[in-house]
Amino acid sequence: MITLKDIEAAHDRIRPFIHRTPVMSNKSLDELSGAKLFFKCDNFQKAGSFKIRGATNTVEQLTQEELDRGIATTSSGNHGAALSMAVSRRGGKTKVVMPNNTPKIKVNNVERNGGVVVRCEPGQSSRESVLADLVEKTGAAVVHPYNDERIIAGQGTAAKELLEDHPGLDMIVSPVSGGGLLSGTLLSAKGMGSHVKVFGAEPLEADDAYRSLQKGEIVGNETIDTICDGLRAQIGTITFPIIKEHVDRIITVTEEEIIDAMRMIWERMKIIVEPSSAITLGAVLKTRNVFEGKQVGLILSGGNVDLEQLPW
Amino acid sequence: MITLKDIEAAHDRIRPFIHRTPVMSNKSLDELSGAKLFFKCDNFQKAGSFKIRGATNTVEQLTQEELDRGIATTSSGNHGAALSMAVSRRGGKTKVVMPNNTPKIKVNNVERNGGVVVRCEPGQSSRESVLADLVEKTGAAVVHPYNDERIIAGQGTAAKELLEDHPGLDMIVSPVSGGGLLSGTLLSAKGMGSHVKVFGAEPLEADDAYRSLQKGEIVGNETIDTICDGLRAQIGTITFPIIKEHVDRIITVTEEEIIDAMRMIWERMKIIVEPSSAITLGAVLKTRNVFEGKQVGLILSGGNVDLEQLPW
Repeated sequence: MITLKDIEAAHDRIRPFIHRTPVMSNKSLDELSGAKLFFKCDNFQKAGSFKIRGATNTVEQLTQEELDRGIATTSSGNHGAALSMAVSRRGGKTKVVMPNNTPKIKVNNVERNGGVVVRCEPGQSSRESVLADLVEKTGAAVVHPYNDERIIAGQGTAAKELLEDHPGLDMIVSPVSGGGLLSGTLLSAKGMGSHVKVFGAEPLEADDAYRSLQKGEIVGNETIDTICDGLRAQIGTITFPIIKEHVDRIITVTEEEIIDAMRMIWERMKIIVEPSSAITLGAVLKTRNVFEGKQVGLILSGGNVDLEQLPW
Repeated sequence: MITLKDIEAAHDRIRPFIHRTPVMSNKSLDELSGAKLFFKCDNFQKAGSFKIRGATNTVEQLTQEELDRGIATTSSGNHGAALSMAVSRRGGKTKVVMPNNTPKIKVNNVERNGGVVVRCEPGQSSRESVLADLVEKTGAAVVHPYNDERIIAGQGTAAKELLEDHPGLDMIVSPVSGGGLLSGTLLSAKGMGSHVKVFGAEPLEADDAYRSLQKGEIVGNETIDTICDGLRAQIGTITFPIIKEHVDRIITVTEEEIIDAMRMIWERMKIIVEPSSAITLGAVLKTRNVFEGKQVGLILSGGNVDLEQLPW
């Protein structure tokens, strides 16, 4: 079981290799939400997202023998780029199984960081079967994008930094997809003895975490027809129990709400975030009564957007 | 004549009403330029640009009688919004003469801050005749966007902050249009006893400052056919002598170079800057040999971009 100690150890391990990202605020979004919002800007993180946290924590613990065999993973893009960066730094090679509808910027990001992209069909089953074939053929060591305790501990460092910088937060909102970031956030918040409430923000069009919580067991996505290309994965067997035990609520957000929130962040904060990040503001604005009058941390998970495919 | 004392007084006057904007750096742009770049992010400034500095410095010095008569100006957008914000805070009203091809976001920005937009044709002569009519009819007090010592002293606070944060800079690059920001930057840099060299970055398609310097006297723009909607104004009679005396060089930048630089800042730094800001990076990248190995400050002057009219 992962504890705050693991997250602290992860933080010490990765600190030399990642940015301590800034926390931004915005008066006009505070007025709009009725809350005081603190945006944790991992869109400014190395390789463009929080994923470098978990990837670095894991890769730093790989043996030389594992690195020599090669590393493989599946990724919607950001984990693949981050893993490639962390593995390249140790002199290894990474193969990344990615859906063939992945935005070009995310493919380029993997390649720029030394990774090799292997295409699959969109959807969980193709991802996994292509990866299994790859591992069988090459003997590569798999670094899963979220269902791995080393990954979860690494991702928890984002909320740890946020709470160190703003210990007075009442609530944190994290995007949820496979659950690595959300479960890391939960373990940091609870481990730091914080009274902080933690919410997951999930696309209504890929709401497996929400429905799994309702049912009390993991259920699959019925659709993954969301603009949030980083939030189409399936909740994991390691992440789900952590979320089930600790999360206060999963808030599902429509595509229109996500796009509106993204545009607001771009126009008012002048920063570039991907839809998978903007969903946190969408969740706050659609359930205003929950957050009103509170100090709310929002994890902006990444900023890798194809500038030629904007949703407006 | 404006001295560092005026800029210091301006800074004290406006400090409660503006942001001290962050300075960002980016490893991949450092590698690309061969220099160490320090981006002064006034795209995060109140009302979305550095213009609030000069506007606030001026408005704070207006008499109640002037405010009662009403305030008027011409603006490509950012000065109008900033002036409206500063005047509204003192309870007054602002009329802003703006070209009818101004991006919608800049019109909205004026209105959101309490200003009233009065349309004119693009080009300096229409701007000035519409403003003159307005003043004759209403008796409004004019706050010029750049040809005013109070404005110049205010704009100089951006470089002052940058040099306070990074005293080791070798060079600063500022956009140049009417010359308020560039002349303020020059007076700060020289006044602070700095050895720093100061460059202006100007669109080749609106290169009146470059040609005026060559000729030794003010000449008009031959075209203003540039994507930099903030850099189409005519160098001023107060700003030009300061620039002529102190500037190290004006670098003219093509439209393609400006757009390429803008895209690089968006993609790599994950921040939104307008073309009039990105031109500073364009100037550095096109004259790499001048900046190589140096510590270079770049003033990112604003972030007000129409997200539906992107140049790629």
